[in-house]
Amino acid sequence: MTVAEKIEALRKKMVQYGVDAVILPTSDPHMSEYIPAHWESRRWFSGFTGDAGTLVVTKQKSLLWTDGRFFIQAEQQLAGTPIQLMRMREPGVPTIEAYLAEHISHGKVAVDGRLYAAKAAENLLNALQRAGTTLVSMDLVKDLWTADRPALPETPVYLLEERYAGKSCADKLAQVRAKLQETGADAQLYSRLDDVAWATNLRASDIACNPFAIAFLLVTASVAYLYLDAKRLEAPAAAYMKQSGVEVRPYSQLEKDLKNGFGAHKILVSKLDVSFALYTSLTENAEVEILEGTDIITALKAVKNPTECENMRICHVYDGVALVRFKRELERRMAAGETLTEWDASEIAHKYRTQMPDNRGDSFETIAAYGPNAAMMHYGPTAEVHASLQPKGFLLVDSGGQYLTGTTDVTRTFAMGPLTQEEKECFTWVLKAHIDLADAKFPQGTTGKDLDAISRVQVWKHGLDYRCGTGHGVGYMGAVHEGPQGFRDTVALVPGMSITDEPGLYMEGRFGIRTENTLEIVEDEKTEYGQFYAFRPLTLFPIDRAAILPELLSPEEMAYLNHYHQHVYTKLAPELTADERAWLKNACAPLEK
Amino acid sequence: MTVAEKIEALRKKMVQYGVDAVILPTSDPHMSEYIPAHWESRRWFSGFTGDAGTLVVTKQKSLLWTDGRFFIQAEQQLAGTPIQLMRMREPGVPTIEAYLAEHISHGKVAVDGRLYAAKAAENLLNALQRAGTTLVSMDLVKDLWTADRPALPETPVYLLEERYAGKSCADKLAQVRAKLQETGADAQLYSRLDDVAWATNLRASDIACNPFAIAFLLVTASVAYLYLDAKRLEAPAAAYMKQSGVEVRPYSQLEKDLKNGFGAHKILVSKLDVSFALYTSLTENAEVEILEGTDIITALKAVKNPTECENMRICHVYDGVALVRFKRELERRMAAGETLTEWDASEIAHKYRTQMPDNRGDSFETIAAYGPNAAMMHYGPTAEVHASLQPKGFLLVDSGGQYLTGTTDVTRTFAMGPLTQEEKECFTWVLKAHIDLADAKFPQGTTGKDLDAISRVQVWKHGLDYRCGTGHGVGYMGAVHEGPQGFRDTVALVPGMSITDEPGLYMEGRFGIRTENTLEIVEDEKTEYGQFYAFRPLTLFPIDRAAILPELLSPEEMAYLNHYHQHVYTKLAPELTADERAWLKNACAPLEK
Repeated sequence: MTVAEKIEALRKKMVQYGVDAVILPTSDPHMSEYIPAHWESRRWFSGFTGDAGTLVVTKQKSLLWTDGRFFIQAEQQLAGTPIQLMRMREPGVPTIEAYLAEHISHGKVAVDGRLYAAKAAENLLNALQRAGTTLVSMDLVKDLWTADRPALPETPVYLLEERYAGKSCADKLAQVRAKLQETGADAQLYSRLDDVAWATNLRASDIACNPFAIAFLLVTASVAYLYLDAKRLEAPAAAYMKQSGVEVRPYSQLEKDLKNGFGAHKILVSKLDVSFALYTSLTENAEVEILEGTDIITALKAVKNPTECENMRICHVYDGVALVRFKRELERRMAAGETLTEWDASEIAHKYRTQMPDNRGDSFETIAAYGPNAAMMHYGPTAEVHASLQPKGFLLVDSGGQYLTGTTDVTRTFAMGPLTQEEKECFTWVLKAHIDLADAKFPQGTTGKDLDAISRVQVWKHGLDYRCGTGHGVGYMGAVHEGPQGFRDTVALVPGMSITDEPGLYMEGRFGIRTENTLEIVEDEKTEYGQFYAFRPLTLFPIDRAAILPELLSPEEMAYLNHYHQHVYTKLAPELTADERAWLKNACAPLEK
Repeated sequence: MTVAEKIEALRKKMVQYGVDAVILPTSDPHMSEYIPAHWESRRWFSGFTGDAGTLVVTKQKSLLWTDGRFFIQAEQQLAGTPIQLMRMREPGVPTIEAYLAEHISHGKVAVDGRLYAAKAAENLLNALQRAGTTLVSMDLVKDLWTADRPALPETPVYLLEERYAGKSCADKLAQVRAKLQETGADAQLYSRLDDVAWATNLRASDIACNPFAIAFLLVTASVAYLYLDAKRLEAPAAAYMKQSGVEVRPYSQLEKDLKNGFGAHKILVSKLDVSFALYTSLTENAEVEILEGTDIITALKAVKNPTECENMRICHVYDGVALVRFKRELERRMAAGETLTEWDASEIAHKYRTQMPDNRGDSFETIAAYGPNAAMMHYGPTAEVHASLQPKGFLLVDSGGQYLTGTTDVTRTFAMGPLTQEEKECFTWVLKAHIDLADAKFPQGTTGKDLDAISRVQVWKHGLDYRCGTGHGVGYMGAVHEGPQGFRDTVALVPGMSITDEPGLYMEGRFGIRTENTLEIVEDEKTEYGQFYAFRPLTLFPIDRAAILPELLSPEEMAYLNHYHQHVYTKLAPELTADERAWLKNACAPLEK
């Protein structure tokens, strides 16, 4: 079937159900960042393969909304289809809500309520109601996308032992229940896969780069229900669930349970994290009162326990060792005159990471971007499409690993040969932005957002900026992007949290630079002004000295850099061969003006 | 009458009116920062003369709430009275709301509704209602405080000519009305004296250091009413009001007008800025609908017009000249062995300011604080109580002037002789905090709060902080503290705003340091990342080089300081005598490592 045929088939379904428009988002029932192929109906109908976008089909039109990262790709992939590209946030381009409210009057809009957050559905409904239009939850995809539709993954579900997780499932559930009690509710439903993984200490490989099992968790004051087909559990995992007071129920049973009762009467619901379909089921249960609130596990999970903190420091040593080997192989082969590509670089990084103890693959698809490609913030090479590396300019490599001992996320921008003065200036400005933030010490109560300008002001000085956050929380053998903390967020930073520090400069058509360490937040001194906290780098890998203009660094910045490099060397050296050690010694040598 | 007798007299009134508690705040009907003596009943009843505090009298107890700035003073002044000091924000000390809710059950609490913001009254009422207690508006003071009660001031009201104000009253009212229309309302009431002064271009001397007339302004779509006794207006001011479409009505008539009608039907009310009494009058008017909103003039006034901006640059030249003369006289007399005091310092500064063109006195009471006195952030010497200056350590002088051409606010901390290493370090850290903020350039949409950490991080590094904002907006021939912008506020900074940059360190019992410039926000470059803004210092006076450790400054900080000093010299030199110029040349000489 062509895209045009698929859309016509969808329109027939719309007529059959009396629907005026249908919305196909990029989402799954768990509000995931990474979507299993089973749920990628937007991709199947439109042919557009980008990671973000929403297809809207009305009786007359078919439109795809996506953001600036994907305009070029979407234009190419939608060419020859009836689908019109809607450039999000460009002047004159309406939001989906505004478009539908304008074009559908006194009609009916359908969305698969399992794939839409309750809050998003509420906002959409508010917009539609002004036009007298209603919103219905309906799956128009299932009868059309059949033969070639991938099944939901069902990889083995294993136990992350307590020497890794640091805290038992029972203890975590007790923590959750204590917080629940404070809110006056006696239950909370968890849709997010990283929430479920954290609370149960279970892991699987259902989603690429995310070590999660597709499951829901419903915690009440007396019992917890894990919605996951029991046969998927490895024996130790099944035993652990039993011992932890977790009852395993079929994945598909959740909606019925919510409607019919689950032994609790006041449920705390975070409408940003629970789907419209599940929320609706709850509203249909007369015995249940819904309290609006935030996701309790998100906040608990963000503060790593002492075992997790200790383990994370260990996995970052191995991650650094893998990067040393990666960089040396790259240098060796480039020096030998081999033609290497971005894809080769990502494969080499992957190869060394998988050789490290406790590694369970990458934490996201490696971004290895050479020259102008690095100016596209979300560019990633594929086996088919990639650029060759040349002995000049920058190669940006943003990569990370999943380890039983933690999750890593690191970006280095390498000088592949001679650099221009502008490239060195930009590199040094980014380095200043990185260091000034990493070196900050701050009183209790300070949020990520409070600190953001410490980093950005270094590039603002030159009329530059970066169109993304300065950094995000990082999971533990979990999601590489994890809330609630971040440098755009008003959540107080506390010891045990980890956060990336990754300012960058992206010069369209020319080059891109990013320097990223994952930092942990640690206690610092307590003075009459209160308890102070500070950042300590978890990431252990040298920053390319060849790209730095030392005269642009302040004495404090220079001291920070040299101290960091000394720390990197001390931590990694014992794990390296003599040759590797010599290489690292050189890469970590003190810089002077 | 003793304090005890006054309180007993108040209790008799309470019995007479069936009241269980009365609250006497430090406030006036205009929610002013500086209170006319007429309204200082809290001071009259309690004997406590500090600038902030609330007296609460119940049948059994009398209590005075004040904050940390005034604990020592209140303790001394309340000794021997029946009044108990309530240390605000200390552990275990309830708020006034909490105290009353706990101690008065099913009773009646009285407050003079003219002196309590509608919002504050609402909060208090909510707290009381849980205890079944009501809040009544009642003036229990007027029959008790009679003979020695100062009248309301009635100084001549004059016109601030348009060559100073930059915009006519008629144009300003048109601006207000355009904004009003956007909100859907057809009237707004202005209680704040600086709002009234801005909109009418009228000034007077009713309040110390604040060039305002005590008046209200009610702006409707067709007419504006100025509530001020007409006989107070100088002839040109009266003619100007007429020509601007402003009708002058007696000050006391406002409450009646609000109850009986004023030709508008939807009034926009900012409950933070309008008193409980006036708000209540509005609610009693059946023909008026109240919309809650913000004060329109506050936002308009904050962005100075081009004439005001130009004038402000001029008044800062004269303010700098006055400070040069002040500092030279101080140095000369100290060198001659005279014993000078903090009070002398403040008198000398005042003397030179009043000699400057267009000066209309000081913009606040000068803080001249020597040695440990400067660690008290709100210390000010008086003719009676003050310390002597010694040829060592620091003298902090925070002062400002009112000029027809603007309002100034500047703090310098002077090395009076040898300094300790710690004093120099702290001075330099404060200087770094000051410069890093002043030197920031930032994209459109950035708020003061976004930038605050750029300054604080420089003292946080040393486990230090300052317990006040980093800076506040400044009026134009108006209030020295003017909202809505500030480095604690989430209001976007835009060109035309002015703001102080005044980090400090306050080492209890030892010394205090503050370095403050008033900055204006100006346009900077426009790039692909948007329109950038920057700060430009308005204040023109050297920062004491003798207190700086140059080795602690980064190259950028050093460059900023030297460039600033060159700018100060260039601007002030033409207004100075040859001797003064030589002095300034030396004070502004470039600093090197």
